[in-house]
Amino acid sequence: MSRKSKNYFSKSRLEAFSDAVFAILITLLVLELKVPEITNELNKEDLWKGLYKLSPKFLSWVMSFLTICVIWVNHNRFFRHFKVIDHGVFWWNAIFLLFTSFIPFPTAVLGDYPLNQIAILLYGGVMTGMGLSFACMRIYAIKEGNMFEDNVDLSQITNKDIYSFLWSPAVYLFGSLASYISVYLSYAVFIFIPIYFFFPKGMYFHLKGSSS
Amino acid sequence: MSRKSKNYFSKSRLEAFSDAVFAILITLLVLELKVPEITNELNKEDLWKGLYKLSPKFLSWVMSFLTICVIWVNHNRFFRHFKVIDHGVFWWNAIFLLFTSFIPFPTAVLGDYPLNQIAILLYGGVMTGMGLSFACMRIYAIKEGNMFEDNVDLSQITNKDIYSFLWSPAVYLFGSLASYISVYLSYAVFIFIPIYFFFPKGMYFHLKGSSS
Amino acid sequence: MSRKSKNYFSKSRLEAFSDAVFAILITLLVLELKVPEITNELNKEDLWKGLYKLSPKFLSWVMSFLTICVIWVNHNRFFRHFKVIDHGVFWWNAIFLLFTSFIPFPTAVLGDYPLNQIAILLYGGVMTGMGLSFACMRIYAIKEGNMFEDNVDLSQITNKDIYSFLWSPAVYLFGSLASYISVYLSYAVFIFIPIYFFFPKGMYFHLKGSSS
Amino acid sequence: MSRKSKNYFSKSRLEAFSDAVFAILITLLVLELKVPEITNELNKEDLWKGLYKLSPKFLSWVMSFLTICVIWVNHNRFFRHFKVIDHGVFWWNAIFLLFTSFIPFPTAVLGDYPLNQIAILLYGGVMTGMGLSFACMRIYAIKEGNMFEDNVDLSQITNKDIYSFLWSPAVYLFGSLASYISVYLSYAVFIFIPIYFFFPKGMYFHLKGSSS
Repeated sequence: MSRKSKNYFSKSRLEAFSDAVFAILITLLVLELKVPEITNELNKEDLWKGLYKLSPKFLSWVMSFLTICVIWVNHNRFFRHFKVIDHGVFWWNAIFLLFTSFIPFPTAVLGDYPLNQIAILLYGGVMTGMGLSFACMRIYAIKEGNMFEDNVDLSQITNKDIYSFLWSPAVYLFGSLASYISVYLSYAVFIFIPIYFFFPKGMYFHLKGSSS
Repeated sequence: MSRKSKNYFSKSRLEAFSDAVFAILITLLVLELKVPEITNELNKEDLWKGLYKLSPKFLSWVMSFLTICVIWVNHNRFFRHFKVIDHGVFWWNAIFLLFTSFIPFPTAVLGDYPLNQIAILLYGGVMTGMGLSFACMRIYAIKEGNMFEDNVDLSQITNKDIYSFLWSPAVYLFGSLASYISVYLSYAVFIFIPIYFFFPKGMYFHLKGSSS
Repeated sequence: MSRKSKNYFSKSRLEAFSDAVFAILITLLVLELKVPEITNELNKEDLWKGLYKLSPKFLSWVMSFLTICVIWVNHNRFFRHFKVIDHGVFWWNAIFLLFTSFIPFPTAVLGDYPLNQIAILLYGGVMTGMGLSFACMRIYAIKEGNMFEDNVDLSQITNKDIYSFLWSPAVYLFGSLASYISVYLSYAVFIFIPIYFFFPKGMYFHLKGSSS
Repeated sequence: MSRKSKNYFSKSRLEAFSDAVFAILITLLVLELKVPEITNELNKEDLWKGLYKLSPKFLSWVMSFLTICVIWVNHNRFFRHFKVIDHGVFWWNAIFLLFTSFIPFPTAVLGDYPLNQIAILLYGGVMTGMGLSFACMRIYAIKEGNMFEDNVDLSQITNKDIYSFLWSPAVYLFGSLASYISVYLSYAVFIFIPIYFFFPKGMYFHLKGSSS
């Protein structure tokens, strides 16, 4: 066994590190919401109007929150098949976390300028980058092939399966470009993605000795 | 065993994820407290007055801190009975965390406008949503029935037990609506809830082979 | 075994929760440092002066950072002797975390008004409260007596040992009150405490079968 | 066995604590990016220009993000060889975390004044301190010698190996001083370091029974 081949990372520490990033992200998102300033502290109508004006920010916050939950679900579903983590998976995961940890910024831009196409392109572009780096991590790990649990049956994976990993970034790219037609179409696409993943999906891999 | 039935989440990762969200929340709450600005840096009276003016913020901070501790206790007491976590529990927990991670915002609004009824309704409404989603998670898990540890005796759970899960959101709803009579009545109700849970409660479930 | 006696918390989850709070605190402290604003972006002297003016903030940041490290060390040294955690330890720990998570605020006040006695009294008061709640947790746990690992020998603990737990909050109280003589004396006391704990201390408890 | 010699820290809690600090850091970095303010909310050109003006901040954010990933990798690679952690390693690690948790501040200064030499010296100085305290921790642990896993072969470590630990802080120091020639040279050095560590390295130690 060569020196390099033993140079793996601890799976549990990388999972804990990624989980902490996700947990911090969904909690930090709320910091973008600033208390509205009103002159008469007891005036109910002023406070209500001030809160109402924040509604684009509320909506972009909920959209990003649910999207990060979906990312967490997918990260979990994939990582539990790993036995060990190598340098390549670590760095694809790092690039994936780079895009993911950036999400609060485009979310805040979207909350301030919800109908400005540049804000939509920024949000969609970051999400496309996030999805693409996640797909690259999956494709890389399958090509390497020696990092998974023994019950993972890689022999059943076809090129079609591999192309299907690109489905999620492709939809985000489509959603971004849809803003050239209408920003509302972009929102429909962006909201569709977490709703789609809300419903339970099958396993990522065929497992040996499994009939389904 | 079907493919779907094996599609469970790691209980320990979901616990760690939720714990991280709670820990971040109680730590972020303090960021709402801004250092008072005074012109004469050495003037003790000015700094004292500046800090004194923050007292509604201190109080709303303490109230939210203790409330999140109570939420942590209840989350712990319930989750330790799980053996596995399915897709439904994950998403009810996600909606529960959505309301919980929102708490810093209504806390800040309450700190700025403590006597404005809209601030009370916002705080109480978020707490009601938090309590309601937690109750839904519990009811869903009991109806599914197959996710608990072997020593949990679900046969002793009556409809009355299930309705009792709605007690906490009902009290928060009552506290919110009490603001139509007096905002001080609302505060009395909101402060009563963490005090009530401060005292140790029994187990959520009857355990098999347990005489009590 | 009664229903209540089994109602313990998971030690590992409470440790992880407290650790996360400490980690977030030492990281959040740096957010108080704001980039100085200068008009000529390339002017080295202006930027140097702007950074130099932040030096009280740097110093209060370092002092709080090291103090939280000392708190972490003590929390670790005590908690590793627990076998189980009951409701009382949880709530004393919660009150202890309430004071600890508040530290960024008095640190920021101290950074802005380093020579104002009110800022010193606020910082010292919060530290006294933190130390006092930690002492209460220790005294409570020893009085209860049934939560420790089997090798902990409580029979050797004297009343003098128990009073010694109050040493740390007493020094912080003294440091606070010393500000009536001189604020610099207060700083000397506050800086002395982390330096004192920097040097390794013995175990909290006599262990059975241990000769030392 | 003396009382003091048993006074070790839990390795897993110190790893978890450090990991949490790294995770919070890479997530907090993005908070420095503020949404640009434009007067006409729908004006695409204004928003684009506002985002474009943030590009030095984007670049300093990416540089710090990747640098913290590299720090995480090195921290992991070193800590997995520990069996126990003593007081000295704890405090060298604490000083290392002090510098690391400071990174968001020099990153923000660099983002605001990218071509000001003082900003470069501050960033490089903090990185040098971070690298130096990490090197001290490694040298201290090797000199102590009794904290590593049984398969670590310390007998093969030469003085040359120990001096090589100082390589990383030396490069950061060189990068800082290079700003006296040109700030662009400094950036080249700062960006070179994460790229260098991007490529997998061998183990820190010779392992017994290992032929490589």
